[in-house]
Amino acid sequence: MTGVINLEDKLNRFTEHWSPRVVAEMNDYQFKLAKFEGRFVWHAHDDTDEVFIVLAGRMGIEFRDGTIALGEGEMCVVPRGVEYRPFAEEECHVMLVEPRGVVNTGEADSDLRAENDVWV
Amino acid sequence: MTGVINLEDKLNRFTEHWSPRVVAEMNDYQFKLAKFEGRFVWHAHDDTDEVFIVLAGRMGIEFRDGTIALGEGEMCVVPRGVEYRPFAEEECHVMLVEPRGVVNTGEADSDLRAENDVWV
Repeated sequence: MTGVINLEDKLNRFTEHWSPRVVAEMNDYQFKLAKFEGRFVWHAHDDTDEVFIVLAGRMGIEFRDGTIALGEGEMCVVPRGVEYRPFAEEECHVMLVEPRGVVNTGEADSDLRAENDVWV
Repeated sequence: MTGVINLEDKLNRFTEHWSPRVVAEMNDYQFKLAKFEGRFVWHAHDDTDEVFIVLAGRMGIEFRDGTIALGEGEMCVVPRGVEYRPFAEEECHVMLVEPRGVVNTGEADSDLRAENDVWV
């Protein structure tokens, strides 16, 4: 039998922004929760697409050719190799889905690089 | 730039139960939405784990060694090779995540086998 993962319960266990926490693995992919507030760093992931699903609040993603806005119950797929920068005016709760081993800042050198593979 | 996928909007576009609709692809994985009501068929997926995320309502999953209950904002990972049977007393809206090509009934022979790779 497998366990039930309550997303709200997991979100209540950390407060840090831009610091994704793993809540589940499916094959070699991880489901992570993150809290965004402020503006992240421009980066790309050369080897993988990445999914963002907004659980609460609002966020945006800047691309080199425009910006998208995402609210609760909305998702997007950032294709591999595409430069982007997430931001949130107020705290936003997000689920990320990507292969195990992906670092939050991609190839970018930034103080916002979080420790990888941290479970909550 | 990439598109925004509104899950409620996608859910409003179909009514069939046990008939997953693809809303996004990430690498060779698909994100699907489904409406569950009633009792599905016992089955397993021998080659992949499968993720269930409840968006609205309540559902359960029977395993050979017990049953779990999932409500809105809860998720679980069904490991590969494990037999299970989802059910929902009332209509439940669910996001499924699994590799492209996975058939809803796995290896089971059932009238509930849905056409695969149907987008909404």
